[in-house]
Formats: sequence, C-alpha cells, structure tokens
Amino acid sequence: MTPLEFFRLQTRQEVLALYERFLPVGTEQVELAAAQGRVTVAAITAPEAVPGFLRATMDGYAVRAQDTFGASVGAPQYLEVKGEVPMGAAPERGVGPGETLRVATGAMLPNGADAVVMLEYTAEHPDGTLEVRRAVAPGENVLAPGEDVARGEVIFPAGRRLRPQEVGLLAALGLTAVTVYRKPRVAILSSGDEIVPLEGRPRPGQVRDSNAYLAAAQVAEWGGLPLMQGIVPDDFAALRGALAQALEAADLILVSGGSSVGVRDLTLNAIQDLPGADVLVHGVALRPGKPTILASLGTPGLKPLLGLPGHPASAAVVMEVLGRPLLTRLAGLTDPASWGRSVSARLSRNLAGATGREDYVRVRLRRDDHIVWADPVLGPSGLLSPLVKSDGLVMIPLGVEGLFKGEEVMVQLFGWS
Amino acid sequence: MTPLEFFRLQTRQEVLALYERFLPVGTEQVELAAAQGRVTVAAITAPEAVPGFLRATMDGYAVRAQDTFGASVGAPQYLEVKGEVPMGAAPERGVGPGETLRVATGAMLPNGADAVVMLEYTAEHPDGTLEVRRAVAPGENVLAPGEDVARGEVIFPAGRRLRPQEVGLLAALGLTAVTVYRKPRVAILSSGDEIVPLEGRPRPGQVRDSNAYLAAAQVAEWGGLPLMQGIVPDDFAALRGALAQALEAADLILVSGGSSVGVRDLTLNAIQDLPGADVLVHGVALRPGKPTILASLGTPGLKPLLGLPGHPASAAVVMEVLGRPLLTRLAGLTDPASWGRSVSARLSRNLAGATGREDYVRVRLRRDDHIVWADPVLGPSGLLSPLVKSDGLVMIPLGVEGLFKGEEVMVQLFGWS
Repeated sequence: MTPLEFFRLQTRQEVLALYERFLPVGTEQVELAAAQGRVTVAAITAPEAVPGFLRATMDGYAVRAQDTFGASVGAPQYLEVKGEVPMGAAPERGVGPGETLRVATGAMLPNGADAVVMLEYTAEHPDGTLEVRRAVAPGENVLAPGEDVARGEVIFPAGRRLRPQEVGLLAALGLTAVTVYRKPRVAILSSGDEIVPLEGRPRPGQVRDSNAYLAAAQVAEWGGLPLMQGIVPDDFAALRGALAQALEAADLILVSGGSSVGVRDLTLNAIQDLPGADVLVHGVALRPGKPTILASLGTPGLKPLLGLPGHPASAAVVMEVLGRPLLTRLAGLTDPASWGRSVSARLSRNLAGATGREDYVRVRLRRDDHIVWADPVLGPSGLLSPLVKSDGLVMIPLGVEGLFKGEEVMVQLFGWS
Repeated sequence: MTPLEFFRLQTRQEVLALYERFLPVGTEQVELAAAQGRVTVAAITAPEAVPGFLRATMDGYAVRAQDTFGASVGAPQYLEVKGEVPMGAAPERGVGPGETLRVATGAMLPNGADAVVMLEYTAEHPDGTLEVRRAVAPGENVLAPGEDVARGEVIFPAGRRLRPQEVGLLAALGLTAVTVYRKPRVAILSSGDEIVPLEGRPRPGQVRDSNAYLAAAQVAEWGGLPLMQGIVPDDFAALRGALAQALEAADLILVSGGSSVGVRDLTLNAIQDLPGADVLVHGVALRPGKPTILASLGTPGLKPLLGLPGHPASAAVVMEVLGRPLLTRLAGLTDPASWGRSVSARLSRNLAGATGREDYVRVRLRRDDHIVWADPVLGPSGLLSPLVKSDGLVMIPLGVEGLFKGEEVMVQLFGWS
C-alpha cells in the first residue's frame, strides 16, 4: 500500500499526462449504416477511384470541347446529335468530330467527349442539328475519374470520428462495413450508506443515487457505454467485491458517491487491495473536485479507475475536465473535431479564483446586442440546479487571483458529444 | 396539379416560415437511463424538495451556530460531544444548548443544529469536550431542505433537450421515467436509374447510393431515426408507390437522388399525385442547393417531404440549412442549446457570392498564433472529399457581393448533435 500521506494535489496537466499509460479499447466491425459517430482504427485507403468514369455535372450535350471553340450567340457552332446517353449505363457510341450526344446530370460521357455544353446554351433543331451558343473548355461541366478520390488515396486518418460526410464517402467507395473502436464500457458504482435507489421515497437522511445517473448520461453523450453497477454499502469486502466485478466487465470504472473522509479512505483501501492496483492520484488541484482519485488496475493490461467527488457539481466538473479526456483516450479518438466545444464571451461580474487550484465556474450565456455575456451561476457544489441553469464552465487558471468583469473568457460548453 | 412554371426560388427564411404548419411527432415514455439527448414534452415540476432534509456539506460537528459565536484560536468555545449522526438515517437525538454531534458530509443534521463546524477548526478531547476554534453562521456548511429545488418548482421547460445535468436532477427527484417526443422517423428514398446499392462494383455509368447514407447519418446525428427505403427506379408508378409507403412509415420523407431535369420533374409529378399533396417550394435561393423541393403530404395531419438535390455537397448543405431545422421542429426541440454551433473566424481569402442566392462555402478551420482562420475548401458540388476536409460552412448573405480576406465570419460547424 502506498502511504496516503504521500499524496499531494496534482494539477490537471499532471493527471492528463498519466493517461498515456492507458490504451484504446478493442475494435469491432460495424455496418456502415451504424457507423456515424464511431472512431476509425486505421487510416482508410480508397479501394477504387470516385467517380469511376467521366461524368456530366449538368444537363446538356456531351461534346469535344474543341468543336465548340469560338461559339457564341452571334456565331454559333453546329453539331450533329447522334442520340442520347442512357442513365446508369455506358454510352452506346462515342462522339467523333462534329458529333454530340444528349446527356443528363450524372450520365457517363461517351468516348471522344471531354466537356458538356449546358442545355440553356443550345438549341436542338428538328433535323438533329445542335446549335451551340457558347464555347466550353475541356473538362467543363464534367467530373474526371478520380477527381473526388483517387484509387489508393488515404481518405482520412485513424482515430477520426465518422461524421455524416465521412459515412457518405465510405458509401461512395462501396465500403459497407468499417472497423472502429468498441464503445468503451464504463462501470459506474455508487458507494455511501446514505445513497438509495431512485425508486421509492428516501427516508430522512437518505438521498437518491443521482450522481450515477448524471455520470452515465455524460458517458453516453461522449460515446461510451455506461454499465450501472448499483449501490455498494460502505463496507470493505462489499466494495472490494464490487470493484473486482466492475474490473471484469468494464474498460473504465467510475466510483461515485460518498465524499466524507471515512468513505474516501474506505474506497481507497478497497482499490489498493485489487490486483495490480496503483493509486496514481489522490486529490487534484481543481475547484470543485479536490477529492478525486485516479488509479490503474489489473494485470495484464491496465484499466483506469476514476473516483469522483460526492458533491454533484464537483462530480460533473471532474467528469468534464478529467473524465472526458480519459474516455476520449480509451475511445481511440486522436483526431477530435474540437471546434465549437468552447465559445468566447465576456464575463458579467468579477470572479475570485481559488488559491492553489484551477477554478471552474458554472456560467450561463446570454446574447445582448451582439455581445455574448457569461453570467456566473453561483451556489455550493452540493446543488444540481445551478448546473441545469448553466451552459458551460469558465476556468480561472492556477495562480491567477481572479477574472474581471468585462474580461474576455473562453466558455467550455456542456452537452457536446 | 400546381403549374410548375408558377414556382420561383424561395429564400431560406421563406422556407423556414413554412415549417410552422408541421407539428412535433408523438410522444413516448422512456426510462431515465435512456433519456439522455431526448426532448421533454412538458415542463417538469418537482414532486418533492431537494434536498429533503437539512444536510451537512462538510465533515465536522453539527452545532447551534449561536453556541460558536466569538470562537477563535485564541478564545475557543467548548461544546459537549453527544455522539454522532449515522449516515443514511435520522439522528437519534437533537442538540441542545452547548451540545454537538459528529457528522460526515451528506449526513442529516439533528434537531436544534443549524450549522456545521469543519473538522479542521476543532479538536475533540478524550473527555468528550469539543474545542471550537472558529465561529460559524447559521446555515454555514449545510444545505437547507429545498435549497436545490423547491417542491412544485418548474425545473425546466417543455422542448428541452435532456443533458446529463437534467438527467441527474430528474434522478434526484425520483423521476424514473420521463415523457419525451419520439425520435422523428425519417424515410430516405433514392431515385435515379444510375444509382445502385453499395454492394458490388458499379458498372460504367452507375454510382453508389452515397447520398442516402450521408443523409441517414445526418438524421441519426441530429436525433432522428433514419429508415432506409432503398433505390426506386425512374418510373412514375414505382416512385409514387414508394412515396406512398414512406408516407405510411415515416414522419418526414427525404428524396435523394437524381438531379437531372427529367428526374426532378418525374419526382414532382409523383409527389403531386399523392393524397393531400401540396408542393410548397420548388427551387430555393441557395448555392449549392437550388433544385430543392418541399411538399406537405397526407390527410389528416401534414407530413413534410424534402426533395434533395443530387450533387452530394448540395444535398449535404440543404440538409444542414433546411433539413436540420425541419427535424428540430418535428422533434419538438423549442429550447435548443445552440451555443457552439458556430464559431467566429477570419476568412483567409476573398470569396465572391452568388447573385440572387445565399451562398454556402465549405471551410476548414485552422488556428494560427491565437487567430482562427477559415480556409475555403473549393471544388464542384459533385465532390464529397471537400466536405470531408471541411469543418463547417460560411454563408455569404443574399445581396452581398462577396466577403473579403481577413473579414470576421461565423462558421456553422458540421458534426453537431
């Protein structure tokens, strides 16, 4: 056992650096129709070119561009219409000098043609003569084979979250299934003799297990698979047993619940009794969130355990600031599209920082005459309702005494998936 | 049939105003564990107070605050320790003048006590005397009943998307299930004789059904339930039959596919032949996205149909600009947390607008020395790869000739759920 006195508060950066020892979870194949939001394991290489053939991008006439040179309304060029290209099939013939075929958007160009004259710049006469009133350059109104994606091209890297456009491109390439990381399984345990299930009415002194539900919703929102492990009594053997079981079932264990010193010590003792346990962090330089625990468990293969503070706002902030990057790490997301996770705003009042700790203040955003204001939503961290009234968090850095009214701040938004 | 010549291009605002005729879909009850991301149908009223009792928020001693007045390190006050409050149960006794009970964080305060002195400002002597070295005010280090939420209080409105903190608060109130809007069912049909399923290798002239997969992923990302209806040949009876079937199954119909004039006219004719059909929009003042159709179908109860352009980038932009607000409307989301859906950036080059149309340009974001730059990703709208390389869209308003290099623009981000 590590002597507990040894621990000092660790900074956010120190905690995040410790995550490097944890590896992404395993992989699975999913159908493309279920791939949205999942994370690629390997870079994807195009097995074929897109488009696969020279395609019209406008309704009109497939031509040899050189046959239209100099054409204008005053001096049109005349071509012979030799028929049309059916949709979804190869043209039945090519076009020679002075010849053309009707094409619709998306049709394949006949041999010899290298451009499309748009319908509106033509007139087809009853005798099969086409009057061309505007010249086109080679490649005009067509897509060349491989113009979107060349065969063998890397279309996106490993660790990319698949957005709709990535799914669309995989479909265009005929990739009907894709290898992605499994959704990390996150066991959520509650401990504390005062904590009771949601059902029924708590007796005096009892509270419902709301932190576990909040954490589970965060896990789901961030792409994990929450496994509710229920409430464990404040008892060493029960806690140790429940932790061992969670270690079997999950990739990450969250322990939510009691924040009294006694419960924290009991939790720490139970963690340290598990195979391969290494308590890495016991106390972080965050406000709220100080009584956070990070441990690595299990041999072979390390699994992280995050012990959350008991106060709901503390637990929610620790999950945002430390839980989310850990889940991202396990999920294999190395190319995160993080634009929009924070917005810039002006603080509507002075805020004092916390000595020796990075301070997270809940704020509500408000737009007033084109200025976005961040209104601090104050209240003890034992309350849930200020979180419900907030849009995100403003961080007062370590070593900064406070922030001033009117100051420009970055607001980390809640509710990002 | 409405004469087709009648239609003129409609602006985005005109199209959005037409959505008011469509009502949110039906409702369902979901377990709280599955409620994350769902939308409330009614305002939620607290059936009880949170907390339900006077709670300690610190480890220490429950006291009558007046007994500590004037206490300091130099002049401590002395109280008699009468035992401790067990966790999860009512205290076995109250505290009278000069008395105190040990409490852990989260414990219920005994009758008579109105504050908690933190452990670190006390010393308990072997004879059961507590030395109090700091005075507390009434209400210090405790949460009063109803301080988080009062009984009967409206905790959030109808039409709110449930974030983790809302789920946590519902859990604290013992609300194990919640009534939410169903996920809108969105039928996705593809038409076009050149379009083939993903499996196998397209023959010359054929392309895979990628737009339907892109649209389905957008629907899923935005909280809808995509129903893939497959590919329909360019044939009036087949298209009409498939549309009628989609109308039965879904709350919204998306028709994706052919963008040639012939296919568009066929689609329009098939739509107009359906019961209660009213083509509201045939052509929008957007670039890309002009050949968009909006229709209302069905009696009783109107259902919307959105006909998407055939070019992938056009379809994706129309879905972002017109499809998403329509889905939001059907989903009942009237209180959307839209912060962060767009970010401010500086344009890295001049952009010319489209005469008479609102112009949407794909951009990639790049941070350079604390400035966020929006780099336009150009390319014809027939390509998918520029979408994959982009983070969002910059809009050039109707009537604006263009935007200048260095100008501050708002970028509407892709990938927001």
